Amino acid sequence: LGRFPASQEGALLGGGVPGEECEWPDLLTSKECQVRARVREYCETKVFTQAAELWENAIHPKALWEGLGALGVGGGTTPSAYGGAGLSLVGAGLVNMELARVDGSLSAIYMIAGCLVTNTIVKLGSEAQKKKYLTQLCAHRTVGSWALTEAEAGSDASGLRTLATPLGGGLWQLDGRKRWIGNAPVASVIIIWARHAETGNTLAFAVEPGSTAGVSVKTMRGKVGLRAIQNGEIFLDGATVKEEARLPGVKSFADAAGVLAQSRVMVTWQPVGLAQGLYDVCLRHVKERMQFGVPLAASQVVQHKLMLMRANCNAMALYAWRLTRRFEQGEASGPDATLAKAWVTLRGRECASIGRELLGGDGLLAGSHVGKAFADMEAYYTYEGTFDINLLVAGRAHTGISAIRPRM
Amino acid sequence: LGRFPASQEGALLGGGVPGEECEWPDLLTSKECQVRARVREYCETKVFTQAAELWENAIHPKALWEGLGALGVGGGTTPSAYGGAGLSLVGAGLVNMELARVDGSLSAIYMIAGCLVTNTIVKLGSEAQKKKYLTQLCAHRTVGSWALTEAEAGSDASGLRTLATPLGGGLWQLDGRKRWIGNAPVASVIIIWARHAETGNTLAFAVEPGSTAGVSVKTMRGKVGLRAIQNGEIFLDGATVKEEARLPGVKSFADAAGVLAQSRVMVTWQPVGLAQGLYDVCLRHVKERMQFGVPLAASQVVQHKLMLMRANCNAMALYAWRLTRRFEQGEASGPDATLAKAWVTLRGRECASIGRELLGGDGLLAGSHVGKAFADMEAYYTYEGTFDINLLVAGRAHTGISAIRPRM
Amino acid sequence: LGRFPASQEGALLGGGVPGEECEWPDLLTSKECQVRARVREYCETKVFTQAAELWENAIHPKALWEGLGALGVGGGTTPSAYGGAGLSLVGAGLVNMELARVDGSLSAIYMIAGCLVTNTIVKLGSEAQKKKYLTQLCAHRTVGSWALTEAEAGSDASGLRTLATPLGGGLWQLDGRKRWIGNAPVASVIIIWARHAETGNTLAFAVEPGSTAGVSVKTMRGKVGLRAIQNGEIFLDGATVKEEARLPGVKSFADAAGVLAQSRVMVTWQPVGLAQGLYDVCLRHVKERMQFGVPLAASQVVQHKLMLMRANCNAMALYAWRLTRRFEQGEASGPDATLAKAWVTLRGRECASIGRELLGGDGLLAGSHVGKAFADMEAYYTYEGTFDINLLVAGRAHTGISAIRPRM
Amino acid sequence: LGRFPASQEGALLGGGVPGEECEWPDLLTSKECQVRARVREYCETKVFTQAAELWENAIHPKALWEGLGALGVGGGTTPSAYGGAGLSLVGAGLVNMELARVDGSLSAIYMIAGCLVTNTIVKLGSEAQKKKYLTQLCAHRTVGSWALTEAEAGSDASGLRTLATPLGGGLWQLDGRKRWIGNAPVASVIIIWARHAETGNTLAFAVEPGSTAGVSVKTMRGKVGLRAIQNGEIFLDGATVKEEARLPGVKSFADAAGVLAQSRVMVTWQPVGLAQGLYDVCLRHVKERMQFGVPLAASQVVQHKLMLMRANCNAMALYAWRLTRRFEQGEASGPDATLAKAWVTLRGRECASIGRELLGGDGLLAGSHVGKAFADMEAYYTYEGTFDINLLVAGRAHTGISAIRPRM
Ligand SMILES: Cc1cc2nc3c(=O)[nH]c(=O)nc-3n(C[C@H](O)[C@H](O)[C@H](O)COP(=O)(O)OP(=O)(O)OC[C@H]3O[C@@H](n4cnc5c(N)ncnc54)[C@H](O)[C@@H]3O)c2cc1C
Ligand SMILES: Cc1cc2nc3c(=O)[nH]c(=O)nc-3n(C[C@H](O)[C@H](O)[C@H](O)COP(=O)(O)OP(=O)(O)OC[C@H]3O[C@@H](n4cnc5c(N)ncnc54)[C@H](O)[C@@H]3O)c2cc1C
Ligand SMILES: Cc1cc2nc3c(=O)[nH]c(=O)nc-3n(C[C@H](O)[C@H](O)[C@H](O)COP(=O)(O)OP(=O)(O)OC[C@H]3O[C@@H](n4cnc5c(N)ncnc54)[C@H](O)[C@@H]3O)c2cc1C
Ligand SMILES: Cc1cc2nc3c(=O)[nH]c(=O)nc-3n(C[C@H](O)[C@H](O)[C@H](O)COP(=O)(O)OP(=O)(O)OC[C@H]3O[C@@H](n4cnc5c(N)ncnc54)[C@H](O)[C@@H]3O)c2cc1C
Repeated sequence: LGRFPASQEGALLGGGVPGEECEWPDLLTSKECQVRARVREYCETKVFTQAAELWENAIHPKALWEGLGALGVGGGTTPSAYGGAGLSLVGAGLVNMELARVDGSLSAIYMIAGCLVTNTIVKLGSEAQKKKYLTQLCAHRTVGSWALTEAEAGSDASGLRTLATPLGGGLWQLDGRKRWIGNAPVASVIIIWARHAETGNTLAFAVEPGSTAGVSVKTMRGKVGLRAIQNGEIFLDGATVKEEARLPGVKSFADAAGVLAQSRVMVTWQPVGLAQGLYDVCLRHVKERMQFGVPLAASQVVQHKLMLMRANCNAMALYAWRLTRRFEQGEASGPDATLAKAWVTLRGRECASIGRELLGGDGLLAGSHVGKAFADMEAYYTYEGTFDINLLVAGRAHTGISAIRPRM
Repeated sequence: LGRFPASQEGALLGGGVPGEECEWPDLLTSKECQVRARVREYCETKVFTQAAELWENAIHPKALWEGLGALGVGGGTTPSAYGGAGLSLVGAGLVNMELARVDGSLSAIYMIAGCLVTNTIVKLGSEAQKKKYLTQLCAHRTVGSWALTEAEAGSDASGLRTLATPLGGGLWQLDGRKRWIGNAPVASVIIIWARHAETGNTLAFAVEPGSTAGVSVKTMRGKVGLRAIQNGEIFLDGATVKEEARLPGVKSFADAAGVLAQSRVMVTWQPVGLAQGLYDVCLRHVKERMQFGVPLAASQVVQHKLMLMRANCNAMALYAWRLTRRFEQGEASGPDATLAKAWVTLRGRECASIGRELLGGDGLLAGSHVGKAFADMEAYYTYEGTFDINLLVAGRAHTGISAIRPRM
Repeated sequence: LGRFPASQEGALLGGGVPGEECEWPDLLTSKECQVRARVREYCETKVFTQAAELWENAIHPKALWEGLGALGVGGGTTPSAYGGAGLSLVGAGLVNMELARVDGSLSAIYMIAGCLVTNTIVKLGSEAQKKKYLTQLCAHRTVGSWALTEAEAGSDASGLRTLATPLGGGLWQLDGRKRWIGNAPVASVIIIWARHAETGNTLAFAVEPGSTAGVSVKTMRGKVGLRAIQNGEIFLDGATVKEEARLPGVKSFADAAGVLAQSRVMVTWQPVGLAQGLYDVCLRHVKERMQFGVPLAASQVVQHKLMLMRANCNAMALYAWRLTRRFEQGEASGPDATLAKAWVTLRGRECASIGRELLGGDGLLAGSHVGKAFADMEAYYTYEGTFDINLLVAGRAHTGISAIRPRM
Repeated sequence: LGRFPASQEGALLGGGVPGEECEWPDLLTSKECQVRARVREYCETKVFTQAAELWENAIHPKALWEGLGALGVGGGTTPSAYGGAGLSLVGAGLVNMELARVDGSLSAIYMIAGCLVTNTIVKLGSEAQKKKYLTQLCAHRTVGSWALTEAEAGSDASGLRTLATPLGGGLWQLDGRKRWIGNAPVASVIIIWARHAETGNTLAFAVEPGSTAGVSVKTMRGKVGLRAIQNGEIFLDGATVKEEARLPGVKSFADAAGVLAQSRVMVTWQPVGLAQGLYDVCLRHVKERMQFGVPLAASQVVQHKLMLMRANCNAMALYAWRLTRRFEQGEASGPDATLAKAWVTLRGRECASIGRELLGGDGLLAGSHVGKAFADMEAYYTYEGTFDINLLVAGRAHTGISAIRPRM
C-alpha cells in the first residue's frame, strides 16, 4: 500500500511546502504544529496500511489505538496532571483532523474516547474518578465510551428514558437501553446518562461494563460507514452501581449539552480531515491514471471537481480553525458550533461524492481509501446532532424562535 | 424483517391503488403489468428478508437468483424459442426496476446475466451458441457474465488490450486481464471481449471459465456498494478456446457498443427502482418514528425532503419509460440512452442522499435497507459509463463535437 | 434579431424532425399538435423580435396579445360556445409552454387572462357573466385579471381580509387592498376574492375597474423578472358593485382552491417552455461563439451543462404532460399538481442558472433572451404557491400530517 | 426606506456586538476597522436610500460616488503620496465588501475605478501619469475605466485584437472595439489594452475619451444585473494618442494578468458583502413578516435556508480575509485568487437564490434590495473571469496540466 499521499493543502493555508516544519505557520502555535506533524506522520505510514482492511472486516484497531497513545496526544485537552496531553482545543482538533484524513474510524474513536469521555470526567467527575480513569484513558491503555442515545431518544436526546433508581446504601440501579454507543463493545468505562427515577433529573455514571452485573453490550453489525469503530447497544437490566460511580458535577441536562458543545467543536475537524484526505488521494490518482491516452487530470470536468474539493477544503479548514479559536476564547457559542458542524459536513459530503466518482469503479472499493471515506462522511453528517437538527439549533439562536419541535 | 413496505407511487403514475391489478395501466401492456406484479411480490416477500445479510457478507444470492428464474422473466427480451421470457424492452426494464427497488445487487445480477449476456448471444452469437447457452441462462440454472473492462480500459472501453491470437486449427489463444466483471466468479459462461492480435479487430468469445485452462477468476473484495453481486478479475494467460466459442456476429467495436446501448436502457431502470424503494422505506419510517413527541413526518424539513424524493421518482420513472418505448420503436438513439442513464443516476443519487439522512443513524445500517441502497446507487452512477462520460457522449451527439478525449 | 432558434427537443420527445408536422406525435392529439405549431411559429417570429424591448421597458405587450388572439387559442379550455378555443388541458398547457419558450411575460398574461380568469367564469360564473365576458376575453379584445393575494395574505392565501359587505338592494361594498395582481393595470375585468363581512364566507366578484367607483389600480414598479406583465395593487375603498357581479358558483374557499389547482397544472408548463427556450438559445450560442480558437461547445464543462439542461427539459416535459393528462382524466389530484409545479420550477431554476452562465456577460442582457428568461424563472418559482408551500401541500397529502403552519 | 438593517455577523467573526467599535477585532488592524465602519455607516444610511431607484433606472450614482470619495477610501491601496487612501489590501477589500452589502453596482464602480485602474497606474504607469490621474481619481472627482474585453476576446482575454500602430513622431493609432467596459460611459480616463500592430506585444494606454478623436463610447442597455454601473462599448477608429499615454510598465500580457490577479482578490470581497447584505435583509424580513399567524422565521424550512446563508457568509468572509492577507504577504498566488473568487461566487449564488425566495413575491422587486442583489450576484459570478475559467486556471496550477483550451 505504501504511504498515504502527501498533503496538498498549499499556500493559502500555509502548508504543503516541502520540508517545512509547521503547516499553517501563522494560524497555529508551534506546539500545535508539532503535534499535528507527529500525528500526520503516524497516519500516513502506520494507519494507512491497515485501515482499509480493519474497516472492511469491522475490527476495532487496537494496535493503532495504542500506537496513537504513544504520540502524546492522549486525552486531548486533558491536563498533564491527569496524564493528558494538555493540548489546546485547536491542537486536539488538529489531531481529529489528521486522523480523519487517513481513517475516519480512528478519528471517531479518538474523538469519543480521547476527547469527549476525558473532557466529561475532567469537567464533571470527582477527583477520585479523575485519578481512577484519566491516566489509563490518556495513555490509550483503555478505551472510553459515552452513552446518551437510546432507541427512542436520538435527535431528541434530552428525551432519554434510562432510569437511575436510588437503592439506598450508596447504591443506584440502572435500567434502560442505549444504542449506537461508539466504543462501547471495547470500553473499560462508559459514561451512562440517565434520569433520576424519582425526580427526573439528569444524572451520569461511570460504569465499568466488564465488572458490573446487569450490564451487557452487543456490537451493532452491518454498518456501511465508520466500520472499524465498534458501536454497541447497551442493555442495563437492574445494573447496580455505587454512588462513587456517579459524576457529581452533573446537575441537569445542560451539563450533557455543555460537554457535547465542546465535542461538536472537535467533530467539526473530522470532515475537514476526511475531505482533505480525499483530495490528496484524488489528486494523485487523476495525475497518474491514464485513459484515452492522457491523465484523467487533463479533463475539464475532472479539474472542475478537483478544484471544488480544494476550495471546500480551504473554507472548511478556516471555518473549523476560527470556530475553535473563538471557542477557546469563550467567544463562540454552542450554536456557533452546531452551525459550523452542520455546514462543514454539508461541504464534506459534497467532497465525498466527488471523490467517490473521481476514482470511477475503484471509488467503490474500501481499499482505494475513497470508498471508505465516502461512507464515513455519512456518519459525521449524522452523529452529534444530525445536519438538520444542528441547523435548527443555530436557527433558534439567530431568530429567537425554536422550530425544532414540530406542531401536531 | 417482515415485508418490504408497499409501493407509494400514487396516482400520477397510476399505481398505488390498493387491489389494483396493474400499476401504470395506461403506460404498460397487461403482460408488462403482470410481470411487474409478480417480481414485486417476490421481492417484497422473499428478496427483502435475505438481501441485507447477503449484502453485508458479500455473498452471491444463489437461491434468490434461482427463485427469480421461476417467475418467467429469465433472459428478459430473449425469445421464448430459446427459453427466454420474450419480454418487451419495457417489460425487462420493469423487472430491473422492481428488483432494484428491494435489492440493487440482485438487479445488477439480472441486468448482466439476464439481459446483457443473453442479448449479446441473441444478437451476435451463432445458432449453436444460442442453443448451448440460452436455455440454461434463461432458466437461471446458470449465471452469465460479460467482460469488457480492463485495468487500463475503463471509461476508454474501446482501448481494451486483451489479445486473441489465432493459433490455426480452429483455435484461439486469449491473453489479458479483465477487471470489475460482474458475476464472473459464479459464471458458467463469460463473454470475453478482445482484439485480434494481428488485425486489431474487436472479437468476442463465449468462454467457460470452469473448463478452460489458462482462465482464472479472482473475486474482488472490499466493495462498499452492490456487495452481493460478485465482481471478478479475470486472468487470461494463454487460455485456448475453439473457433466455436467466437461470436460470429461481432465485426467491430460497434457491436459491443450496440449491445451496451440496449443495456444502458436497462440500467436506466435501476436507479428508478432503487429510488422508489428508498422512498417507500423512508415514508413508512418517518410516519412511524417518533421524536419530540411527534412523528418525524410532522417536520417541515422532513416533508420537504420526502417530496423531493417523490417528485424525482415520478420524473425518473417517466423518463425511463419514455426512453424505453422510443427505443423499442427505433426512435431513441444511443445518446438518448446515455443521457437518460446519466440523468436518472444524478437524481437517484440525490434520492439516496436524502434517504440515507432521513433514517438518521439507522440510515448507516445495511439492515435498514437505506444504508445498502445508498451505497448501491454509487455503482449505478458509475458502471456502464460513468455519469460524466455518458453526458459527454450525449454532448457529442447534440453539439456535433466530441469533447471526450481531452487535449494534451 | 431574426428568428428564435429552432427547437432542439429531439427524438426522445418526438420532435425536432425537420418538416415534421407534429412534435410529440404519440403523446399529443393532432389538434394539440396544430395549436402548438401555430403558437410556436408566432412566437419565434413575432414575439421574439419585440419581447426583450418590452421587457426592458416594462410595457404591456398589447399588440402581441391581440395577435395571439387571432391564433385560435383564446380562453384555453373555454368551450367554443363562449368563444373559447375549446382546447384540451394539454393543449392549453402547450400554449403556455410555447409562449414561455420565447417570452415568460406573455405566457403569464395568457395563463392568467386566458386560462385562470376564463376558467373561473366558466366554472363559477353565472350564465350572464359568461355571456358578458368570455367572448371578449377569448378574442383577446380585453384582458382579464384575478385577484386573491393581499399584503398580509400571500402564502396564507386563505387568510384574505378584503371584505364584501351586503348593502341591501342587490348591492355589495368592497373594501380592502390586493397586491401583486397580474394584468390588473390593463384589465377590463378583475375577479376579486373577498370575505363576506358578516359570515366570513369566501366570495368572488367580477369587477370592472374602469367603471367602478372606489376601485383604483396602481402599477407595481421595479420588478426584476416578468417585467412585461403588469402587476398591480388594487385599492378597494368602499367600491360598490351589484349582486350581478358576484360569482354565484363560489360557495367557499375550496372554490378558489379548485380553480387554482387547474391553474397550477397550466403553470407547470411555463418552466418547461422557459427551460426549452434557454436550451435552444444556448445550444446555438455555444456552437457559434468562438473562444480560444474553438466553439464554446468544444469544452467539456460547457457540454456538461448543456446536457444537464437537455435532460432536465426532457424530464420536465414528460412530467407536465403526464400530470395534465391524468388531470384531464380526473386521476391527478391537487397535490399532484403542487408537487409537479414545485419540482418543475426547481429544475427550471437550475436550467436558468446554467443558461445565464453559458452566455457569459451576454447572459446578463435581456436582449440575449437568456438574461430575461433567467429572471422570469424566479417568478414562476414563486407565484401560484411558492416552491416550499407547494412541497408542503404535497407533503400533507402523502404523510397525512400538515406541516404548513409552524408551531409557535 | 429607512436604514439598511444592522449587520448580523455575530460572534464567530467577532462582529455584531452592539456598540463595538471594531467588527472582526482580531482579524483586522484598527485602521481597517475604522475604514470599514465609516463605509458601512455611509452605505446603511446614504447609499441604501437611493440605490434601488438608480438601479431600476440604470443611472450612474454620481452623488454617491462623490460622497464615497469623502470617506478617505479613494484609490484603495494607492499610496497617500498620490492622494490615495493607502489602505492595506484587506482594507480595500473591506470597502468593496461593505459597498456590495448594500449596493452591488457601487461596489463594482469602486472596484474598477478605485482599485483596478489606480493600481494599474501605480504599478505600470509613468511618474507623469501618476501625477496626472491619481489625485483626481482618488478624490472621486473623476471616474476611471479599464478596457480589456472585446467582442471576440472574453474568456480568452489574451486574444485581444485591438491594434496600436506606431505612427512615428511619438504618436500611436488605436483601432478596435472594446465591450462590457465598466464605467466607460462616465470615465475621464480609460486604460485601453491593445497589441502592437507589428510585434504583437501587449500595450496599454491611458486614453481620455472626452478629448480624443476617434474614440466613442456607447452605453450598453438592457442589463438585468448591476444596472447602476454603466457598461460601455468603446469604438476606436483611428484614434490617435501620444506616446505619453502609453503605460511604460507594460511589457507583456503578464502585466495585465498581474494587475488582474490583485483585482480578483478585491472581487472576492464583493460576493461576501452581497451575501451578508442579503442575510441581514432576510433575517429582518422573516422575523417581521407574519403568515399563518406566525413570523416566517418560525418555519423550519425558512430557518434552514437562513442558517445555510449564515454559514456560507462566515466561510466566505474567512476565505476572502485569508486569501487577502496571504496575498499581502506574497504567499497567495494568482491561482489562489481565481479559486477563491470562483468558490466565493458559487456560495454567493446560493445565498442569492435563497434570499430571493425568502422574500416571496417581494424578492422580485429591486426595491426590496433582494431582487437587486440576486441579479447583481450574477455579474460577480461572471466578470473578472467566469466561474468555470477561474476554476480551470486554478486546476492548471494544481494539476500541472492546462485544460482551458479544448481540443478540436
Ligand atoms: C456512527 C455513529 C456513532 C455514534 N456514537 C454515539 C455515541 O458514542 N454516543 C451516543 O450517545 N450516541 C452516538 N450516536 C448516536 C447519534 O448521536 C444519533 O444517531 C443522532 O443524534 C441522530 O439520532 P437518530 O439516529 O435517532 O436519528 P433520528 O433522530 O431518528 O433522525 C432521523 C431524521 O429525522 C430528522 N429529524 C429528527 N427530528 C427532527 C425534527 N424535529 N425536525 C426536523 N428533522 C428531524 C433528523 O435530522 C434525521 O434526518 C452515534 C451515531 C452514529 C451513526
Ligand atoms: C459494480 C460494478 C460492476 C461492473 N460490472 C462490469 C461488468 O460486468 N463488465 C464490465 O466489462 N465492466 C464492469 N464494470 C466496469 C465499469 O464499466 C467501469 O468501472 C466504468 O466504465 C468506469 O471505468 P473506471 O472504473 O476505469 O473509471 P475511470 O475510467 O478511471 O474514470 C474515473 C473518473 O474519471 C472520469 N473520466 C475518465 N475519463 C474521462 C474523460 N475523458 N473526460 C472526463 N472525465 C473522465 C470518469 O467520469 C470518472 O469520474 C463494473 C463496475 C462496477 C463498479
Ligand atoms: C409576478 C407575480 C405575479 C403574481 N400574480 C398574481 C395574480 O395574478 N393574482 C394573485 O392573486 N396573486 C398573484 N401573485 C402573488 C403570488 O401568488 C404570491 O407572491 C405568492 O403566493 C407568495 O406570497 P408572498 O409573496 O406573500 O410570499 P410569502 O408568503 O411572504 O413567502 C415568503 C417566503 O416564506 C415562505 N413561507 C411562507 N410561509 C411559510 C410557511 N408556513 N412555512 C414555510 N415557508 C413559508 C415562502 O415559501 C417564501 O419563501 C403574483 C406574484 C408574482 C411574483
Ligand atoms: C457587468 C460586467 C462588467 C464588466 N466589466 C469589465 C470591465 O470593466 N473591463 C473589462 O475589460 N471587461 C469587463 N467585463 C467583461 C468580463 O470580464 C467578461 O464578460 C468575462 O470575462 C466573460 O467573457 P464573455 O462574456 O465573453 O463570456 P465567454 O468567454 O463567451 O464565456 C461564455 C461561457 O463559456 C464558458 N467558456 C468560455 N471558454 C471556455 C473554455 N475554454 N472552457 C470552458 N468554458 C468556457 C464561460 O465559462 C462562460 O460560461 C465585464 C462584464 C460584465 C458582465
